Order: sequence, then structure tokens, then C-alpha cells
Amino acid sequence: MKNIFNKIKTDKPLVHHITNYVTVNDCANTTLYWGGLPVMAHSKEEVDDMVELASSLVLNIGTLDKKQMEAMLKAGKKANELDIPVILDPVGVGATSYRTEMAVNLLNELDIAVISGNKGEITVLAGKKGQVKGVESVGKYNEIIKNSKALAQNSSSIVVVSGKEDIVTNGFQIYKIKNGSKLLGKVVGTGCMLTSTIGVFAGVSDDYFDSTIKAVVSYGIAGEISAEKSIGPASFKINFMDSIAAFNNEKYEKYNKIDNLS
Amino acid sequence: MKNIFNKIKTDKPLVHHITNYVTVNDCANTTLYWGGLPVMAHSKEEVDDMVELASSLVLNIGTLDKKQMEAMLKAGKKANELDIPVILDPVGVGATSYRTEMAVNLLNELDIAVISGNKGEITVLAGKKGQVKGVESVGKYNEIIKNSKALAQNSSSIVVVSGKEDIVTNGFQIYKIKNGSKLLGKVVGTGCMLTSTIGVFAGVSDDYFDSTIKAVVSYGIAGEISAEKSIGPASFKINFMDSIAAFNNEKYEKYNKIDNLS
Amino acid sequence: MKNIFNKIKTDKPLVHHITNYVTVNDCANTTLYWGGLPVMAHSKEEVDDMVELASSLVLNIGTLDKKQMEAMLKAGKKANELDIPVILDPVGVGATSYRTEMAVNLLNELDIAVISGNKGEITVLAGKKGQVKGVESVGKYNEIIKNSKALAQNSSSIVVVSGKEDIVTNGFQIYKIKNGSKLLGKVVGTGCMLTSTIGVFAGVSDDYFDSTIKAVVSYGIAGEISAEKSIGPASFKINFMDSIAAFNNEKYEKYNKIDNLS
Repeated sequence: MKNIFNKIKTDKPLVHHITNYVTVNDCANTTLYWGGLPVMAHSKEEVDDMVELASSLVLNIGTLDKKQMEAMLKAGKKANELDIPVILDPVGVGATSYRTEMAVNLLNELDIAVISGNKGEITVLAGKKGQVKGVESVGKYNEIIKNSKALAQNSSSIVVVSGKEDIVTNGFQIYKIKNGSKLLGKVVGTGCMLTSTIGVFAGVSDDYFDSTIKAVVSYGIAGEISAEKSIGPASFKINFMDSIAAFNNEKYEKYNKIDNLS
Repeated sequence: MKNIFNKIKTDKPLVHHITNYVTVNDCANTTLYWGGLPVMAHSKEEVDDMVELASSLVLNIGTLDKKQMEAMLKAGKKANELDIPVILDPVGVGATSYRTEMAVNLLNELDIAVISGNKGEITVLAGKKGQVKGVESVGKYNEIIKNSKALAQNSSSIVVVSGKEDIVTNGFQIYKIKNGSKLLGKVVGTGCMLTSTIGVFAGVSDDYFDSTIKAVVSYGIAGEISAEKSIGPASFKINFMDSIAAFNNEKYEKYNKIDNLS
Repeated sequence: MKNIFNKIKTDKPLVHHITNYVTVNDCANTTLYWGGLPVMAHSKEEVDDMVELASSLVLNIGTLDKKQMEAMLKAGKKANELDIPVILDPVGVGATSYRTEMAVNLLNELDIAVISGNKGEITVLAGKKGQVKGVESVGKYNEIIKNSKALAQNSSSIVVVSGKEDIVTNGFQIYKIKNGSKLLGKVVGTGCMLTSTIGVFAGVSDDYFDSTIKAVVSYGIAGEISAEKSIGPASFKINFMDSIAAFNNEKYEKYNKIDNLS
């Protein structure tokens, strides 16, 4: 049986993004470097046609507006109809009531396979009062395990909480991923790029819990490898993206640090 | 007589782009690094005024929507009126019927000086059934020479087919360009950046067939030079853009590999 | 008393941007690398809520359209109400009458703390006929001191003119900053990134004249440090952004070159 890294390179999953204009180039390159094919399309005239070609759909609300919301709902419904996994990045949820309402709306209207956010965003989506300052989370990890499990159960989604240590849960089992580098927190867009990575891996898998754990771990390892040789965040970003392009199963087997907290 | 590289640096052609938000920063920097001046403006309130200042107009449909389409038509008509060359990058044509219709619409409504796409996109625009997966082309080169010639004749445009080897035709003469690097296919936006390059070169020329051949060759050589010293696609992109900024006529004369297939 | 560099790192000012899609990623990373928190939000459904969380508001008209203009006015008025400093980058003013009218409209409707542009843009805003070619300025420095002072007095704003040597004036005092590198003019977006930098510094200060001088000087020094080790504009940009992340008060004290022209 092929490992997931080879499967991505062979299948070249098309990952349809409806995403923000801040980190869109990074998300596209991340998708391509893992071995997927990125497509960014937001027009309501074509989103449903594009979804038909896709292996997964990434919805990232970083620079949401009314038109984009309509496109996300249209694309998401088509994806649900076709059993194409939908990955949601609730960027900045909790910062404004508009973002929170729209993210909740997406959760109510769509079947979301994976929700990937930082601890502030996940806390807010779990219905708790989170601390969010803009799109960066400044809250504490205290209650995050409880909250992420609750959100996963309520939404029937896999939930990822990215941070110094990442959490992945399906609402019952919960894993802590200790791979990563603090430099990942020093560059804009690493949360978005992680979500795109989860989309790539989901695009070649039937088990989204398994594919998401592998995505989060691999992303973290690529961060570790590149942090060693970087002198600042901008050069780190370049090295990190090169490390993604050079990633393989051997590195995954050698470096993964996964704790089962279930 | 000045060579085209010096002419660009002296004239600083303003290249007005109406383009996608995925690769827009790369297109702007590519334009500047060759010696042109980039301007990205999409509002219907100003596109025609901006075109009046421009030496060429690049239309790239990578993230097309209805409003952008209106702006492209308005800007394109003004450019035609003023004899400013219009360069079209039909990104993702064939992926959705909306994209195909809109690209055909642009071809019908405007005089396009140069069409630059990958083999899938050019095949679709030539009226044949192409294989397009998202915005990446996965088709074969079999019929591409015939199709690119037909499209060039039907649209009275120069047609560029980018790929492992590039093709440039005016519908009668046809050239194969063997410069380039496979790393160019491993980075998002290299098709868009090539189209911007063609826009820069057309902006200082009256012979768009000649300027386009030089643009495609120079772009390929810059890719070769930078591939040698790159360890991955992200660092390649940086090296490649530095190579563009350092390009000159000597490198063109020394490294060009052009086959006349006419 | 803390120096401003430490104050930024401690306070982490949230800098709300309504900005163009060409350089938005660079602006976000610049904000983060100085120690601020970037948020880019343009939807009229949330801009006023986002401003309430912000320490400063950056308005950059590089790819302005009607909807964005509405959002800028709404966000700007809320910022004025809450005494949050508004920084305006009038990108491309003078290139089209639409841009000029809209920038004048922003100046009339809002209290702008700092206006940061190149000499062409500032000349046009001062009511003089400037020479602007697209978004790049090609005018001369002759009258710029007079014009920047006049604009500062008329608008009650701090005015920054970026160029080979930068000018900062409050309409009465005027400083010439001799830090910087010519490579800063060879990369797209360095004007926008300077404006974001001014936004970060204003976000932790009550004296916008002082914070703006420090922002412009620090930005220039980071440029000098990184120019030494760069072989082209693309690698320079990476080095420059690393230099921003590594900047501190010691470098400021050691390298600043400020002339008081008052």
C-alpha cells in the first residue's frame, strides 16, 4: 500500500480554495509543494463547477465579505452533495460579531470534515468566551482540550487546534502533536498554510482523522527541519516551503512526536 | 540601435494589469525587475484612465468574476482604441464553462495581441476538447502545434504555449523555445509571470511576434541560470526573480535556444 | 521608560489595514515582524467592529474601488471617534482622476494622523501638478519640501515623503532622513510596507510626529543593513524583512542619520 505522501504525488488532488487575499499565494504554493494542485476560485458563476473537479474544498474566512460568504455556501453545498471533504479555517472568529456569525452559519449549513484554527478561534466556536486580538490568538491552553472535544462532537468534525503544541480530536480520541517550531508563529499565514495542507491530505484519504493527524505532524516536522538553518522569519518561510517540497515518508516515520491523550 | 533589454530600462513601460489576487505580487515584481513599471487597477471608475498611461495591458483571468470581467472589457476596448497591445492569460480555461465563455468573450470583443497559456488552455481556446485539471494543464503535446497555429490564425494573435518546451506562433511561422527549467513548473504563478514578461517586452516594441519570442526565451534563460543554485522551489523562485533583475542582452545572445519549425 | 521598540513588542499593537491586494502579504508580515499584530478586514459588515480592537488604522488605496472606499470611510470615522490614529497611503494619486478624488475625499472626511507617499503623490495632494507614472513617482525633489509642509499644514497631518532621502514634517518642523538603500526602490511594495511600519509605531505612541520619524529611520536602517548582503532585489526583500524582525534600539541609536531642516 502506498503511503500518503506518495499517494498525494500520484493522485495530485485538486484543492479548491475560497480564501483570503492575504495569504492566498502561500496557500497555493503549499498545496503545490506537497504534490497537490491548487485552484482559487470565488465567483458564484463557477464555484460549483470547480468543486466538481476538486478532491477537497478549503474555506478560509480571513477576509470574508458578503459575496464570498455566498460563494462559500454554494461551493460547500455542492461539495457535501458530492462527498468532497470541506475544511474550514475560521480565521479571526471572535474578533467581530460578523465573523463569528458567519462561521457559525457555515457550521450550521454545511457538513465540515475538518475545522482548523488557533485556540482563541476554537474556543469561540465551542461557544465559550475566547480571547482573540485580531486574527492572532492570545488566550491560554487551560480549557482547550475540553472545548475542542465539545466542538468536534457538536459539529461532527475533526477539530485541529494549532499552537505551540497542536491538538487533533474527533470528539472522542484526542492527540497532542509535539512537532513544530516557534518560528511558525512568527510568520503570517502559517495557520492558513496548515489548513491548506490538511486539505491536500484529506483529498487523497477516506479517513479524515488519520489524514489530518498526518498533515499536522508533517507540517510541524517541516517546520523543525527548516528552523535549524534560518536566521529570521522571512528566510525561515522560504526554507520551510522548500522543506515541504522535499518531505517524504521517511522523515515522517523518523521525526513524528504524537501523544495519545484519549 | 538599442537592444530590447536596454530599451525596457530606458523607456520603463507601464504595464497595466487586471489580474488575479493569487500571483499579483509576483507579476508586479517581475514587471519591475525587467525594468517596467507595474500598475494593478481593476475599478471600472479608473481602468480606462489608467490604460491611457500604459504601454501594454495584461488581462489574466485566474480569479475572474463578473465585475472584473466588466473592467477587462472596458480597459481592453480603450487599449484597442489607442493601439496599446493587450496580452491575455486565459488561466484555467476549460476548467469551468464560465471561464471558457468569458475567455471566448474577451477574444471576440477585443483585439488581443498575444495569448499566453499552457497546452490545455490553448487547446480549449482552439476549440478542441482539452484536458485541464484546475488551472494546471495535464494534457499531451500531440496536437498542440496544429492547435496553436489555428488559434493564432483565427484570433489574429500571437499565441504562446508554455510548457517543458515553449511554442510561439503567429499562425504562419512557429518557433520552439528550448530554454527553461523544470523548476518553473514547480512554483505557482510562473505562467502568470511569463505573461507579465510578455507585456513588458510588448510595451517597448512594434513587432509583437519578435518581442514575444525574446520575452519567452529570456524568461527561460533566467530560469536555467537560477535552477543551478536552488535547493527547492521556494528558494528557486527568489533566485529566479534575482536573475530577471540581472538579465541582459549578453545572456540572451549566449544562451538562447530557438528552433524554427515553420 | 521603555524605548519604542520594546513598547511595540510588549503592547503588540493591532494594526487594522484596509489595503491593496498586491502587497497585502508584505504589509502583514512587516507589521508582525516589528512586533505588531496585523489584521486585514475590508467588509463593511465588520470594519467598525474591527477598528474598536485596533491601535491604528492603515488606509492604502493601491487597488481602490467603490466598495473599499465605503469601508475606508466607515472605518476611518470610527477610528476618529475613538482617537485611533489613521495612516493614509495615497498610492497612485495623480495617475487617474478617480484616485485623486477619492484621496482628497478621505482627507476631507477624516482626520488623518499621517500621510505617507512618494514625491509625486504628495505633490498632487498638495494641490500641485505632479508627475506620476502609474504608481511610481518620476518627479523631481525641487519643490517637495514646500509642498509637503503645505500639505501638512492644510490637513493637520504628519506628512512623509519617501524617496532616496525621506522627508517627515508636521507642517512646521521638517526632518530629512538619510537612512535607506536604493534597493528599497527596486522592490514592489516598499512604500506600502513603510506605511504599515508607521502604523505599528503610531499604535504605541501619543506623539505621531516622533513615532513617525522613528519608524522612517528604523525602516531605512533595516534597508541599509540588508542591502550589504543581497545579490538582487528578491533576496534583498527577504533579508530586509529578516532585518526588521531583528531590529532594536541599539541599531537605531547607532545608525540613525537625521537632519533637522526646520
